[in-house]
Amino acid sequence: MRICRFDEDRVGVVRGALVHDVTDALELLPPLRWPVPPGDHFFNHLDRLRPRMEALADSVPGRPVSGVRLLSPVANPGKIIAAPVNYERHLAESRADRGINMGTEVRSIHHYGLFLKAGSSLIGPSQPVIVHWPDRRIDHEVELALVIGRKGFRIPEEAALDHVAGYCIGLDMTVRGTEDRSFRKSLDSFTVLGPWLVTADELGDPGNLAIDLVVDGAPRQSASTRDLVLNCAQLIAYASQAYTLWPGDVIMTGTPEGVGPVRPGNVMEARIDRIGSMRVAVAG
Amino acid sequence: MRICRFDEDRVGVVRGALVHDVTDALELLPPLRWPVPPGDHFFNHLDRLRPRMEALADSVPGRPVSGVRLLSPVANPGKIIAAPVNYERHLAESRADRGINMGTEVRSIHHYGLFLKAGSSLIGPSQPVIVHWPDRRIDHEVELALVIGRKGFRIPEEAALDHVAGYCIGLDMTVRGTEDRSFRKSLDSFTVLGPWLVTADELGDPGNLAIDLVVDGAPRQSASTRDLVLNCAQLIAYASQAYTLWPGDVIMTGTPEGVGPVRPGNVMEARIDRIGSMRVAVAG
Repeated sequence: MRICRFDEDRVGVVRGALVHDVTDALELLPPLRWPVPPGDHFFNHLDRLRPRMEALADSVPGRPVSGVRLLSPVANPGKIIAAPVNYERHLAESRADRGINMGTEVRSIHHYGLFLKAGSSLIGPSQPVIVHWPDRRIDHEVELALVIGRKGFRIPEEAALDHVAGYCIGLDMTVRGTEDRSFRKSLDSFTVLGPWLVTADELGDPGNLAIDLVVDGAPRQSASTRDLVLNCAQLIAYASQAYTLWPGDVIMTGTPEGVGPVRPGNVMEARIDRIGSMRVAVAG
Repeated sequence: MRICRFDEDRVGVVRGALVHDVTDALELLPPLRWPVPPGDHFFNHLDRLRPRMEALADSVPGRPVSGVRLLSPVANPGKIIAAPVNYERHLAESRADRGINMGTEVRSIHHYGLFLKAGSSLIGPSQPVIVHWPDRRIDHEVELALVIGRKGFRIPEEAALDHVAGYCIGLDMTVRGTEDRSFRKSLDSFTVLGPWLVTADELGDPGNLAIDLVVDGAPRQSASTRDLVLNCAQLIAYASQAYTLWPGDVIMTGTPEGVGPVRPGNVMEARIDRIGSMRVAVAG
């Protein structure tokens, strides 16, 4: 199943080029009160919603998904986790480019661990990335993003993919500089998820997906998830050594080589096998 | 006003040594539906709740606050922001202690920017800090924490304190190592807030508060917030250059000198002027 959020917090099922509005399925969600329990309420109860969403998608007419405003498929992630230097060739380019490494030695992902991005930085593909600090270098980083569907702590690698609700495309927009990653990658609009979530059962093995990014028609990043240093299962196992993973938590799996700056007016087009593609504008 | 959360998600007003249960004031909160809007729902609407909370505190009998289980005064922070090396003498000790600096040169807060801690790491003083990685050095860091009460982006320093709902004590538990701060400070239970929130109007100027931490009766940290490199207003102004601050967002202002390791069985007692004190156990 392909699940999207669109327009004014509508929920859709995408089939081919059409989106079916299945927002009525949200009636099945238990009532919500403050304090909100951990996890994204939708992903906490997705198993309960799915049959109703399927039935609604069968019965309501679709309309072209190209005509709706797509939002982030995750609305309320408890945390957005991301993996630094998780492709060997991106590690190599980071070591070679002083504009990326800021004069420091670049080590491996095992040296840096993982990092966090602010939930307030999250947008969907219909919203522009804003260049808030125009005097700094701001790079695109396309990534495979996975969304947790089942709570876990110290998850063994063998069972890790059972904890995935689905996958989407992620953009980890990045200010180059000396500040901690969790700061310079958390500016408002610096995390883009979209165009929709492809559920884990539909996507299958995430280990060999072509991933690429084009800016204004010019190829910038092109790789395969088979070149990840830590693959999806290993990232889940590693992350859950530190903290509980809750439904709706996002893991951005790291960007391959080819990162580079964007400027207002650019349009980024990101694509991942078996997920689809999304166009995201850069604004001033 | 001193606001606490306790027992099974009760809300209290603390007066002297007594807590008055004002949970019924939550009836004034607007209904909540998924997707949850940005910000902690309680802090989004605190101005509306306060008169009812005052009135309830006047009418319901109090009971000893020492007899309740105190939870984090913030339940659903959108983000937990923290300031690295924000006291000069902690910067000095970090430069001198290889167990802190891991062999790297320690720079200033302007070099590192701010960092994030995972919301899933948040507990209150009635819950123990868990030493999840017993083979690593795990340090206490006591800090003044402020909670945002009013949304803002690019907040000028002069207006920054108007955005504060209140203050509490924070513990920023830290694994020493090479990993990004947002990883090694985000283990489950590694962020403690308590014992309650003192509203900004009651606390007044946060710029000259004695702050200290004792472990098993032995003094470890003792300083004053007047020695902050970036003070509360400057931190709010700086943070909001990168991202929107939402009600319920937490800024942990940094720890003074005297950080050091804890072990299972230790009890940390943290104290800040005009807020109070809290005891937090360390467990294996």
